[in-house]
Amino acid sequence: MKVGIIGLGLIGGSMAIDLKRRGFASEIIGVESEPVNAAAALKIGLVDRITDFDQCVEKVDMVVLAVPVGVAVKMLPQVLDRFAAGQNGGPGKATAKVVIDVCSTKEQLARRVKYHPARRHYVATHPMAGTEYSGPWAAMSGLFDGHACIICDAEDSCPDAVAKVESLYDVLNMRTICMNSSNHDVHTAYVSHISHVTSFALALTVLDKEKDEKHIFDLASGGFSSTVRLAKSSPDMWTPILSQNRDNILHVMDTYIEKMNEFREAIAEGDEARVRSLIEEANRIRRIIR
Amino acid sequence: MKVGIIGLGLIGGSMAIDLKRRGFASEIIGVESEPVNAAAALKIGLVDRITDFDQCVEKVDMVVLAVPVGVAVKMLPQVLDRFAAGQNGGPGKATAKVVIDVCSTKEQLARRVKYHPARRHYVATHPMAGTEYSGPWAAMSGLFDGHACIICDAEDSCPDAVAKVESLYDVLNMRTICMNSSNHDVHTAYVSHISHVTSFALALTVLDKEKDEKHIFDLASGGFSSTVRLAKSSPDMWTPILSQNRDNILHVMDTYIEKMNEFREAIAEGDEARVRSLIEEANRIRRIIR
Repeated sequence: MKVGIIGLGLIGGSMAIDLKRRGFASEIIGVESEPVNAAAALKIGLVDRITDFDQCVEKVDMVVLAVPVGVAVKMLPQVLDRFAAGQNGGPGKATAKVVIDVCSTKEQLARRVKYHPARRHYVATHPMAGTEYSGPWAAMSGLFDGHACIICDAEDSCPDAVAKVESLYDVLNMRTICMNSSNHDVHTAYVSHISHVTSFALALTVLDKEKDEKHIFDLASGGFSSTVRLAKSSPDMWTPILSQNRDNILHVMDTYIEKMNEFREAIAEGDEARVRSLIEEANRIRRIIR
Repeated sequence: MKVGIIGLGLIGGSMAIDLKRRGFASEIIGVESEPVNAAAALKIGLVDRITDFDQCVEKVDMVVLAVPVGVAVKMLPQVLDRFAAGQNGGPGKATAKVVIDVCSTKEQLARRVKYHPARRHYVATHPMAGTEYSGPWAAMSGLFDGHACIICDAEDSCPDAVAKVESLYDVLNMRTICMNSSNHDVHTAYVSHISHVTSFALALTVLDKEKDEKHIFDLASGGFSSTVRLAKSSPDMWTPILSQNRDNILHVMDTYIEKMNEFREAIAEGDEARVRSLIEEANRIRRIIR
Protein backbone atom coordinates (compact mmCIF):
# COMPACT_ATOMS: atom_id res chain seq x y z
CA MET A 1 0.00 0.00 0.00
CA LYS A 2 1.17 3.56 -0.75
CA VAL A 3 1.07 5.76 2.31
CA GLY A 4 1.16 9.56 2.27
CA ILE A 5 2.35 11.28 5.42
CA ILE A 6 1.56 14.96 5.72
CA GLY A 7 3.79 16.51 8.37
CA LEU A 8 7.19 14.88 8.87
CA GLY A 9 7.78 15.59 12.55
CA LEU A 10 8.27 13.21 15.47
CA ILE A 11 4.99 11.32 14.92
CA GLY A 12 4.79 11.37 11.13
CA GLY A 13 8.50 10.57 10.78
CA SER A 14 8.42 7.70 13.29
CA MET A 15 5.38 6.20 11.55
CA ALA A 16 7.18 6.49 8.21
CA ILE A 17 10.17 4.54 9.50
CA ASP A 18 8.25 1.57 10.89
CA LEU A 19 5.48 1.38 8.25
CA LYS A 20 8.17 1.03 5.58
CA ARG A 21 10.57 -1.13 7.56
CA ARG A 22 7.83 -3.54 8.64
CA GLY A 23 6.39 -3.92 5.16
CA PHE A 24 3.03 -2.17 5.61
CA ALA A 25 3.92 0.56 3.11
CA SER A 26 5.40 -0.19 -0.31
CA GLU A 27 6.12 3.52 -0.75
CA ILE A 28 5.99 6.51 1.59
CA ILE A 29 5.24 9.90 0.06
CA GLY A 30 5.87 12.85 2.35
CA VAL A 31 4.44 16.37 2.42
CA GLU A 32 6.20 18.97 4.54
CA SER A 33 5.72 22.73 4.44
CA GLU A 34 9.01 23.61 6.18
CA PRO A 35 11.75 23.36 3.51
CA VAL A 36 14.51 22.55 6.04
CA ASN A 37 12.45 19.75 7.57
CA ALA A 38 11.51 18.40 4.14
CA ALA A 39 15.16 18.28 3.06
CA ALA A 40 16.18 16.65 6.34
CA ALA A 41 13.42 14.02 6.08
CA LEU A 42 14.65 13.07 2.61
CA LYS A 43 18.27 13.03 3.70
CA ILE A 44 17.56 10.91 6.78
CA GLY A 45 15.56 8.61 4.52
CA LEU A 46 12.22 8.87 6.32
CA VAL A 47 10.30 9.02 3.03
CA ASP A 48 10.78 7.81 -0.52
CA ARG A 49 9.90 11.19 -1.96
CA ILE A 50 8.38 14.54 -1.16
CA THR A 51 5.47 15.92 -3.20
CA ASP A 52 2.92 18.67 -2.75
CA PHE A 53 -0.37 18.10 -0.99
CA ASP A 54 -2.49 17.45 -4.10
CA GLN A 55 -0.11 14.97 -5.67
CA CYS A 56 0.23 13.08 -2.43
CA VAL A 57 -3.53 12.75 -1.87
CA GLU A 58 -3.94 11.65 -5.49
CA LYS A 59 -1.21 9.00 -5.47
CA VAL A 60 -1.60 7.22 -2.16
CA ASP A 61 -4.02 4.68 -0.69
CA MET A 62 -3.84 6.05 2.82
CA VAL A 63 -3.23 9.63 3.98
CA VAL A 64 -1.85 10.27 7.47
CA LEU A 65 -2.36 13.81 8.75
CA ALA A 66 0.51 14.26 11.21
CA VAL A 67 0.32 18.03 11.57
CA PRO A 68 -0.61 20.15 14.62
CA VAL A 69 -4.33 19.96 15.29
CA GLY A 70 -4.91 23.59 14.26
CA VAL A 71 -3.63 22.70 10.77
CA ALA A 72 -5.38 19.32 10.69
CA VAL A 73 -8.77 21.00 11.19
CA LYS A 74 -8.18 22.88 7.92
CA MET A 75 -6.56 20.05 5.97
CA LEU A 76 -8.92 17.21 6.79
CA PRO A 77 -11.89 18.66 4.80
CA GLN A 78 -9.49 19.41 1.93
CA VAL A 79 -8.46 15.76 1.79
CA LEU A 80 -12.08 14.61 1.96
CA ASP A 81 -13.03 17.10 -0.79
CA ARG A 82 -10.48 15.46 -3.06
CA PHE A 83 -11.70 11.97 -2.12
CA ALA A 84 -15.29 13.00 -2.95
CA ALA A 85 -14.30 14.62 -6.24
CA GLY A 86 -12.19 11.65 -7.31
CA GLN A 87 -15.04 9.12 -7.07
CA ASN A 88 -13.10 7.33 -4.40
CA GLY A 89 -14.51 3.83 -4.84
CA GLY A 90 -17.24 4.55 -2.32
CA PRO A 91 -17.75 2.96 1.09
CA GLY A 92 -17.23 -0.75 1.04
CA LYS A 93 -15.00 -0.68 -2.03
CA ALA A 94 -11.63 -2.30 -1.40
CA THR A 95 -9.94 0.39 -3.48
CA ALA A 96 -11.35 3.22 -1.37
CA LYS A 97 -8.82 5.65 0.02
CA VAL A 98 -8.60 6.35 3.73
CA VAL A 99 -7.40 9.38 5.69
CA ILE A 100 -6.47 9.35 9.37
CA ASP A 101 -5.30 12.06 11.72
CA VAL A 102 -3.07 11.44 14.74
CA CYS A 103 -3.99 14.51 16.80
CA SER A 104 -4.30 14.77 20.59
CA THR A 105 -7.73 16.43 20.53
CA LYS A 106 -10.66 15.10 18.59
CA GLU A 107 -13.95 16.89 19.18
CA GLN A 108 -13.39 19.86 16.88
CA LEU A 109 -12.05 17.64 14.10
CA ALA A 110 -15.09 15.40 14.39
CA ARG A 111 -17.48 18.35 14.33
CA ARG A 112 -15.69 19.92 11.35
CA VAL A 113 -16.33 16.96 9.00
CA LYS A 114 -19.47 15.45 10.53
CA TYR A 115 -21.60 16.14 7.45
CA HIS A 116 -18.91 15.80 4.80
CA PRO A 117 -20.01 13.45 1.97
CA ALA A 118 -16.71 11.54 2.26
CA ARG A 119 -16.77 11.41 6.10
CA ARG A 120 -16.77 7.61 6.13
CA HIS A 121 -13.30 7.52 4.54
CA TYR A 122 -11.88 9.28 7.59
CA VAL A 123 -10.83 7.44 10.75
CA ALA A 124 -9.97 9.54 13.81
CA THR A 125 -6.98 8.07 15.68
CA HIS A 126 -4.71 9.09 18.51
CA PRO A 127 -1.59 6.99 18.98
CA MET A 128 -0.66 7.75 22.60
CA ALA A 129 3.11 7.84 22.29
CA GLY A 130 5.71 10.53 21.90
CA THR A 131 8.71 12.26 23.38
CA GLU A 132 9.33 15.88 24.26
CA TYR A 133 11.36 16.33 21.05
CA SER A 134 10.07 17.39 17.66
CA GLY A 135 11.06 17.55 14.00
CA PRO A 136 12.11 14.81 11.55
CA TRP A 137 15.41 14.42 13.45
CA ALA A 138 13.42 13.29 16.50
CA ALA A 139 11.75 10.45 14.58
CA MET A 140 12.65 6.96 15.76
CA SER A 141 11.82 3.33 15.16
CA GLY A 142 9.77 1.66 17.88
CA LEU A 143 8.19 4.87 19.20
CA PHE A 144 4.70 3.34 19.23
CA ASP A 145 5.51 -0.22 20.31
CA GLY A 146 3.42 -1.33 23.27
CA HIS A 147 1.40 1.87 23.66
CA ALA A 148 -2.33 2.46 23.29
CA CYS A 149 -4.01 4.01 20.26
CA ILE A 150 -7.48 5.46 20.56
CA ILE A 151 -9.88 5.20 17.63
CA CYS A 152 -12.71 7.71 17.95
CA ASP A 153 -16.27 7.57 16.63
CA ALA A 154 -15.51 4.38 14.66
CA GLU A 155 -19.23 4.04 13.83
CA ASP A 156 -18.91 7.17 11.63
CA SER A 157 -16.26 5.49 9.45
CA CYS A 158 -16.87 2.63 7.07
CA PRO A 159 -15.82 -0.77 8.46
CA ASP A 160 -13.29 -1.35 5.65
CA ALA A 161 -11.53 1.88 6.48
CA VAL A 162 -11.45 1.01 10.20
CA ALA A 163 -10.06 -2.44 9.40
CA LYS A 164 -7.23 -0.96 7.32
CA VAL A 165 -6.37 1.49 10.08
CA GLU A 166 -6.41 -1.28 12.67
CA SER A 167 -3.95 -3.26 10.59
CA LEU A 168 -1.72 -0.16 10.37
CA TYR A 169 -1.65 0.17 14.16
CA ASP A 170 -1.15 -3.54 14.50
CA VAL A 171 2.05 -3.20 12.49
CA LEU A 172 3.08 -0.41 14.88
CA ASN A 173 2.47 -2.80 17.81
CA MET A 174 -0.22 -0.64 19.35
CA ARG A 175 -3.37 -1.87 21.10
CA THR A 176 -6.44 0.00 19.93
CA ILE A 177 -9.19 1.31 22.22
CA CYS A 178 -12.46 2.76 20.94
CA MET A 179 -14.32 5.71 22.42
CA ASN A 180 -16.23 8.74 21.23
CA SER A 181 -14.32 11.94 20.56
CA SER A 182 -15.91 13.83 23.41
CA ASN A 183 -14.83 11.23 26.01
CA HIS A 184 -11.43 11.11 24.37
CA ASP A 185 -10.90 14.81 24.95
CA VAL A 186 -11.91 14.57 28.61
CA HIS A 187 -9.57 11.61 29.21
CA THR A 188 -6.56 13.12 27.49
CA ALA A 189 -7.03 16.35 29.44
CA TYR A 190 -6.43 14.26 32.58
CA VAL A 191 -3.69 11.86 31.52
CA SER A 192 -1.74 14.00 29.08
CA HIS A 193 -2.64 17.66 28.68
CA ILE A 194 -2.53 18.65 32.35
CA SER A 195 0.96 17.06 32.71
CA HIS A 196 2.22 19.39 30.04
CA VAL A 197 0.71 22.46 31.68
CA THR A 198 2.17 21.55 35.10
CA SER A 199 5.60 21.06 33.48
CA PHE A 200 5.40 24.38 31.66
CA ALA A 201 4.47 26.14 34.92
CA LEU A 202 7.29 24.41 36.79
CA ALA A 203 9.85 25.45 34.17
CA LEU A 204 8.60 29.04 34.31
CA THR A 205 8.82 29.06 38.11
CA VAL A 206 12.39 27.85 38.25
CA LEU A 207 13.60 29.85 35.23
CA ASP A 208 12.24 32.96 36.96
CA LYS A 209 14.38 32.23 40.00
CA GLU A 210 17.41 31.49 37.82
CA LYS A 211 17.51 35.15 36.83
CA ASP A 212 18.93 35.86 40.31
CA GLU A 213 20.57 32.51 41.02
CA LYS A 214 22.67 31.49 38.07
CA HIS A 215 23.78 28.15 39.47
CA ILE A 216 20.44 26.86 40.60
CA PHE A 217 20.40 24.09 37.98
CA ASP A 218 23.72 22.64 39.13
CA LEU A 219 21.63 20.99 41.80
CA ALA A 220 18.82 19.67 39.65
CA SER A 221 18.52 15.93 40.12
CA GLY A 222 16.69 13.19 38.25
CA GLY A 223 13.38 13.89 39.95
CA PHE A 224 13.34 17.48 38.81
CA SER A 225 14.34 16.56 35.25
CA SER A 226 11.61 14.00 34.96
CA THR A 227 8.94 16.37 36.27
CA VAL A 228 10.00 19.22 34.01
CA ARG A 229 10.93 17.38 30.83
CA LEU A 230 7.58 17.89 29.09
CA ALA A 231 8.25 21.63 29.30
CA LYS A 232 10.52 21.14 26.29
CA SER A 233 7.46 20.31 24.17
CA SER A 234 6.81 22.27 21.01
CA PRO A 235 4.55 25.36 21.06
CA ASP A 236 3.45 24.54 17.49
CA MET A 237 1.90 21.36 18.76
CA TRP A 238 0.69 22.46 22.19
CA THR A 239 -0.81 25.89 21.55
CA PRO A 240 -3.61 24.46 19.36
CA ILE A 241 -4.16 21.49 21.71
CA LEU A 242 -4.68 23.77 24.70
CA SER A 243 -6.97 25.91 22.59
CA GLN A 244 -9.04 23.09 21.09
CA ASN A 245 -9.48 21.26 24.36
CA ARG A 246 -10.00 24.46 26.32
CA ASP A 247 -13.03 23.60 28.43
CA ASN A 248 -11.79 20.20 29.57
CA ILE A 249 -8.34 21.53 30.35
CA LEU A 250 -9.69 24.47 32.33
CA HIS A 251 -11.79 22.07 34.37
CA VAL A 252 -8.78 19.86 35.17
CA MET A 253 -6.59 22.89 35.91
CA ASP A 254 -9.16 24.14 38.39
CA THR A 255 -9.14 20.83 40.25
CA TYR A 256 -5.37 20.84 40.15
CA ILE A 257 -5.06 24.40 41.50
CA GLU A 258 -7.51 23.40 44.25
CA LYS A 259 -5.25 20.47 45.23
CA MET A 260 -2.19 22.73 45.24
CA ASN A 261 -4.01 25.17 47.50
CA GLU A 262 -5.02 22.35 49.84
CA PHE A 263 -1.36 21.36 50.11
CA ARG A 264 -0.35 24.99 50.55
CA GLU A 265 -2.78 25.48 53.39
CA ALA A 266 -1.71 22.31 55.20
CA ILE A 267 1.97 23.26 54.91
CA ALA A 268 1.34 26.89 55.92
CA GLU A 269 -0.59 25.80 59.00
CA GLY A 270 2.13 23.33 59.97
CA ASP A 271 -0.55 20.61 59.91
CA GLU A 272 1.74 17.60 59.48
CA ALA A 273 -1.07 15.08 59.87
CA ARG A 274 -2.92 16.69 56.96
CA VAL A 275 0.25 16.87 54.81
CA ARG A 276 0.95 13.20 55.52
CA SER A 277 -2.56 12.17 54.62
CA LEU A 278 -2.43 14.10 51.32
CA ILE A 279 0.86 12.38 50.44
CA GLU A 280 -0.54 8.98 51.38
CA GLU A 281 -3.55 9.63 49.20
CA ALA A 282 -1.29 10.67 46.29
CA ASN A 283 0.75 7.49 46.84
CA ARG A 284 -2.24 5.50 45.56
CA ILE A 285 -0.80 6.30 42.14
CA ARG A 286 1.64 3.43 42.88
CA ARG A 287 -1.13 0.96 42.11
CA ILE A 288 -1.40 2.42 38.67
CA ILE A 289 1.91 3.68 37.36
CA ARG A 290 4.68 1.14 37.31
CA MET B 1 37.33 2.60 58.38
CA LYS B 2 34.25 1.37 60.27
CA VAL B 3 31.08 3.09 59.09
CA GLY B 4 27.79 3.17 61.01
CA ILE B 5 24.66 3.77 59.03
CA ILE B 6 21.58 4.77 60.99
CA GLY B 7 18.50 4.23 58.85
CA LEU B 8 18.70 1.49 56.23
CA GLY B 9 16.39 2.86 53.57
CA LEU B 10 17.08 3.80 49.96
CA ILE B 11 19.87 6.28 50.76
CA GLY B 12 21.49 4.56 53.75
CA GLY B 13 21.26 1.15 52.09
CA SER B 14 22.69 2.35 48.77
CA MET B 15 25.59 4.02 50.56
CA ALA B 16 26.23 0.82 52.50
CA ILE B 17 26.50 -1.21 49.29
CA ASP B 18 29.03 1.00 47.53
CA LEU B 19 31.09 2.06 50.56
CA LYS B 20 31.75 -1.61 51.30
CA ARG B 21 32.10 -2.78 47.71
CA ARG B 22 34.50 0.02 46.81
CA GLY B 23 36.71 -0.50 49.85
CA PHE B 24 35.96 2.70 51.78
CA ALA B 25 34.41 0.80 54.69
CA SER B 26 36.05 -2.24 56.28
CA GLU B 27 32.84 -2.90 58.19
CA ILE B 28 29.32 -1.50 58.00
CA ILE B 29 27.24 -1.48 61.17
CA GLY B 30 23.55 -0.74 60.67
CA VAL B 31 20.93 0.69 62.99
CA GLU B 32 17.28 0.35 61.99
CA SER B 33 14.23 0.88 64.16
CA GLU B 34 11.80 -1.04 61.93
CA PRO B 35 12.33 -4.77 62.68
CA VAL B 36 11.18 -5.90 59.22
CA ASN B 37 13.54 -3.48 57.50
CA ALA B 38 16.41 -4.46 59.80
CA ALA B 39 15.92 -8.16 59.06
CA ALA B 40 15.66 -7.46 55.33
CA ALA B 41 18.82 -5.32 55.33
CA LEU B 42 20.74 -8.17 56.97
CA LYS B 43 19.28 -10.77 54.62
CA ILE B 44 20.03 -8.68 51.51
CA GLY B 45 23.53 -8.19 52.88
CA LEU B 46 23.51 -4.39 53.03
CA VAL B 47 25.30 -4.38 56.41
CA ASP B 48 27.72 -6.64 58.28
CA ARG B 49 25.66 -6.45 61.43
CA ILE B 50 22.86 -4.60 63.16
CA THR B 51 23.36 -3.05 66.60
CA ASP B 52 21.55 -0.51 68.72
CA PHE B 53 22.24 3.21 68.43
CA ASP B 54 24.72 3.46 71.34
CA GLN B 55 26.85 0.50 70.30
CA CYS B 56 27.01 1.74 66.75
CA VAL B 57 28.13 5.25 67.70
CA GLU B 58 30.73 3.76 70.06
CA LYS B 59 32.21 1.28 67.57
CA VAL B 60 32.45 3.22 64.33
CA ASP B 61 34.73 5.93 62.93
CA MET B 62 32.03 7.60 60.91
CA VAL B 63 28.29 7.80 61.57
CA VAL B 64 25.89 8.39 58.70
CA LEU B 65 22.43 9.62 59.73
CA ALA B 66 20.19 8.40 56.93
CA VAL B 67 16.84 8.91 58.65
CA PRO B 68 14.00 11.34 57.79
CA VAL B 69 14.95 14.89 58.74
CA GLY B 70 12.43 15.02 61.59
CA VAL B 71 14.28 12.12 63.25
CA ALA B 72 17.73 13.45 62.33
CA VAL B 73 17.04 16.69 64.19
CA LYS B 74 16.62 14.63 67.36
CA MET B 75 19.43 12.12 66.74
CA LEU B 76 22.20 14.47 65.67
CA PRO B 77 22.64 16.09 69.11
CA GLN B 78 22.50 12.61 70.68
CA VAL B 79 25.42 11.48 68.51
CA LEU B 80 27.37 14.64 69.29
CA ASP B 81 26.65 14.21 73.03
CA ARG B 82 28.30 10.78 72.88
CA PHE B 83 31.25 12.16 70.89
CA ALA B 84 31.75 14.89 73.52
CA ALA B 85 31.44 12.45 76.42
CA GLY B 86 33.83 9.94 74.86
CA GLN B 87 36.75 12.38 74.58
CA ASN B 88 36.62 12.00 70.88
CA GLY B 89 40.22 12.85 70.00
CA GLY B 90 39.33 16.49 69.54
CA PRO B 91 39.42 18.53 66.37
CA GLY B 92 42.52 17.91 64.30
CA LYS B 93 43.12 14.45 65.76
CA ALA B 94 43.26 11.76 63.07
CA THR B 95 41.30 9.41 65.32
CA ALA B 96 38.39 11.83 65.73
CA LYS B 97 34.97 10.46 64.86
CA VAL B 98 32.77 12.17 62.34
CA VAL B 99 28.98 12.26 61.89
CA ILE B 100 27.19 13.30 58.72
CA ASP B 101 23.55 13.60 57.82
CA VAL B 102 22.16 13.14 54.31
CA CYS B 103 18.91 15.12 54.67
CA SER B 104 17.19 17.29 52.08
CA THR B 105 16.78 20.30 54.39
CA LYS B 106 19.57 21.80 56.40
CA GLU B 107 18.73 25.02 58.21
CA GLN B 108 16.98 23.50 61.21
CA LEU B 109 19.67 20.85 61.66
CA ALA B 110 22.35 23.54 61.55
CA ARG B 111 20.49 25.69 64.08
CA ARG B 112 19.89 22.72 66.39
CA VAL B 113 23.61 21.97 66.93
CA LYS B 114 25.16 25.39 66.31
CA TYR B 115 26.48 25.71 69.87
CA HIS B 116 27.11 22.03 70.59
CA PRO B 117 30.64 21.47 71.98
CA ALA B 118 31.22 18.67 69.43
CA ARG B 119 29.74 20.66 66.49
CA ARG B 120 33.00 20.51 64.55
CA HIS B 121 32.76 16.71 64.27
CA TYR B 122 29.54 17.09 62.26
CA VAL B 123 29.51 17.67 58.51
CA ALA B 124 26.17 18.56 56.90
CA THR B 125 25.78 16.84 53.52
CA HIS B 126 23.07 16.36 50.95
CA PRO B 127 23.78 13.80 48.24
CA MET B 128 21.35 14.86 45.49
CA ALA B 129 20.31 11.46 44.21
CA GLY B 130 17.43 9.13 44.79
CA THR B 131 14.47 7.37 43.31
CA GLU B 132 10.79 7.44 44.21
CA TYR B 133 11.15 4.11 46.02
CA SER B 134 12.03 3.54 49.66
CA GLY B 135 13.14 0.87 52.10
CA PRO B 136 16.23 -1.41 52.15
CA TRP B 137 14.81 -3.31 49.14
CA ALA B 138 15.08 -0.11 47.08
CA ALA B 139 18.83 0.24 47.78
CA MET B 140 21.06 -0.11 44.74
CA SER B 141 24.68 0.15 43.71
CA GLY B 142 25.60 3.22 41.67
CA LEU B 143 22.73 5.39 42.95
CA PHE B 144 25.03 8.35 43.61
CA ASP B 145 27.40 8.04 40.64
CA GLY B 146 27.73 11.28 38.69
CA HIS B 147 25.38 13.36 40.86
CA ALA B 148 26.11 16.43 42.99
CA CYS B 149 26.52 16.41 46.76
CA ILE B 150 26.14 19.64 48.71
CA ILE B 151 28.27 20.21 51.79
CA CYS B 152 26.78 22.92 54.00
CA ASP B 153 28.48 25.32 56.39
CA ALA B 154 31.84 23.56 55.93
CA GLU B 155 33.54 26.32 57.94
CA ASP B 156 31.71 25.10 61.06
CA SER B 157 33.29 21.63 60.74
CA CYS B 158 36.96 20.85 61.37
CA PRO B 159 38.98 20.48 58.13
CA ASP B 160 39.93 16.86 58.92
CA ALA B 161 36.30 15.90 59.20
CA VAL B 162 35.46 17.66 55.93
CA ALA B 163 38.38 15.91 54.20
CA LYS B 164 37.15 12.48 55.36
CA VAL B 165 33.66 13.23 54.16
CA GLU B 166 34.94 14.45 50.80
CA SER B 167 36.82 11.19 50.38
CA LEU B 168 33.60 9.29 51.17
CA TYR B 169 31.71 11.15 48.45
CA ASP B 170 34.64 10.73 46.10
CA VAL B 171 34.24 6.97 46.46
CA LEU B 172 30.55 7.40 45.64
CA ASN B 173 31.56 9.30 42.46
CA MET B 174 29.82 12.50 43.52
CA ARG B 175 31.03 16.04 42.86
CA THR B 176 30.82 18.19 46.00
CA ILE B 177 29.50 21.75 46.05
CA CYS B 178 29.74 24.00 49.12
CA MET B 179 27.10 26.46 50.26
CA ASN B 180 25.53 27.65 53.48
CA SER B 181 22.52 25.80 54.82
CA SER B 182 20.15 28.69 54.29
CA ASN B 183 20.98 28.96 50.56
CA HIS B 184 20.79 25.19 50.33
CA ASP B 185 17.21 25.20 51.55
CA VAL B 186 16.19 27.90 49.08
CA HIS B 187 17.80 26.06 46.16
CA THR B 188 16.36 22.65 46.98
CA ALA B 189 12.90 24.18 47.34
CA TYR B 190 13.21 25.15 43.66
CA VAL B 191 14.94 22.15 42.11
CA SER B 192 13.56 19.33 44.22
CA HIS B 193 10.83 20.05 46.76
CA ILE B 194 8.42 21.85 44.42
CA SER B 195 8.64 18.97 41.91
CA HIS B 196 7.37 16.63 44.58
CA VAL B 197 4.48 18.88 45.51
CA THR B 198 3.43 19.31 41.85
CA SER B 199 3.53 15.52 41.40
CA PHE B 200 1.48 14.91 44.54
CA ALA B 201 -1.11 17.44 43.36
CA LEU B 202 -1.22 15.88 39.89
CA ALA B 203 -1.75 12.41 41.33
CA LEU B 204 -4.56 13.70 43.56
CA THR B 205 -6.23 15.43 40.60
CA VAL B 206 -6.24 12.36 38.40
CA LEU B 207 -7.08 9.90 41.17
CA ASP B 208 -10.09 12.06 42.00
CA LYS B 209 -11.33 11.72 38.44
CA GLU B 210 -10.64 7.97 38.46
CA LYS B 211 -13.43 7.56 41.01
CA ASP B 212 -15.90 8.11 38.13
CA GLU B 213 -13.79 6.94 35.22
CA LYS B 214 -12.29 3.58 36.07
CA HIS B 215 -10.30 3.20 32.86
CA ILE B 216 -8.70 6.60 32.74
CA PHE B 217 -5.22 5.20 33.35
CA ASP B 218 -5.40 2.84 30.37
CA LEU B 219 -4.49 5.90 28.37
CA ALA B 220 -1.64 7.19 30.49
CA SER B 221 1.49 7.52 28.38
CA GLY B 222 5.16 8.04 29.17
CA GLY B 223 4.80 11.77 29.65
CA PHE B 224 2.19 11.38 32.35
CA SER B 225 4.18 8.69 34.17
CA SER B 226 7.30 10.78 34.23
CA THR B 227 5.45 13.84 35.54
CA VAL B 228 3.66 11.92 38.26
CA ARG B 229 6.30 9.42 39.34
CA LEU B 230 7.54 11.47 42.31
CA ALA B 231 4.02 11.15 43.76
CA LYS B 232 5.07 7.65 44.84
CA SER B 233 7.53 9.20 47.30
CA SER B 234 7.36 8.25 50.95
CA PRO B 235 5.31 10.35 53.40
CA ASP B 236 7.83 9.48 56.16
CA MET B 237 10.51 11.33 54.24
CA TRP B 238 8.46 14.13 52.71
CA THR B 239 6.19 15.24 55.55
CA PRO B 240 9.15 16.51 57.63
CA ILE B 241 10.89 18.04 54.59
CA LEU B 242 7.82 20.08 53.70
CA SER B 243 7.50 21.09 57.32
CA GLN B 244 11.15 22.00 57.90
CA ASN B 245 11.50 23.95 54.67
CA ARG B 246 8.07 25.52 55.03
CA ASP B 247 8.81 29.17 54.26
CA ASN B 248 10.90 28.51 51.17
CA ILE B 249 8.45 25.98 49.82
CA LEU B 250 5.45 28.27 50.36
CA HIS B 251 7.28 31.00 48.50
CA VAL B 252 7.99 28.73 45.52
CA MET B 253 4.44 27.34 45.58
CA ASP B 254 3.07 30.87 45.41
CA THR B 255 5.14 31.64 42.33
CA TYR B 256 4.08 28.33 40.82
CA ILE B 257 0.37 28.91 41.47
CA GLU B 258 0.78 32.36 39.91
CA LYS B 259 2.26 30.79 36.75
CA MET B 260 -0.58 28.24 36.61
CA ASN B 261 -3.10 31.06 36.90
CA GLU B 262 -1.35 32.99 34.12
CA PHE B 263 -1.68 29.92 31.89
CA ARG B 264 -5.28 29.43 32.96
CA GLU B 265 -6.17 32.98 32.08
CA ALA B 266 -4.48 32.84 28.66
CA ILE B 267 -6.26 29.56 27.83
CA ALA B 268 -9.62 30.77 29.17
CA GLU B 269 -9.42 33.95 27.09
CA GLY B 270 -8.46 31.97 23.99
CA ASP B 271 -5.33 34.14 23.77
CA GLU B 272 -3.22 31.80 21.62
CA ALA B 273 -0.39 34.33 21.23
CA ARG B 274 -0.03 34.51 25.01
CA VAL B 275 -0.20 30.70 25.40
CA ARG B 276 2.44 30.30 22.72
CA SER B 277 4.72 32.85 24.35
CA LEU B 278 4.40 31.14 27.77
CA ILE B 279 5.31 27.78 26.19
CA GLU B 280 8.25 29.32 24.35
CA GLU B 281 9.46 30.85 27.59
CA ALA B 282 9.13 27.48 29.35
CA ASN B 283 11.06 25.86 26.48
CA ARG B 284 14.16 27.71 27.68
CA ILE B 285 14.49 24.78 30.08
CA ARG B 286 15.98 22.92 27.05
CA ARG B 287 19.21 24.82 27.55
CA ILE B 288 19.47 23.37 31.00
CA ILE B 289 17.98 19.91 31.23
CA ARG B 290 19.38 17.37 28.84
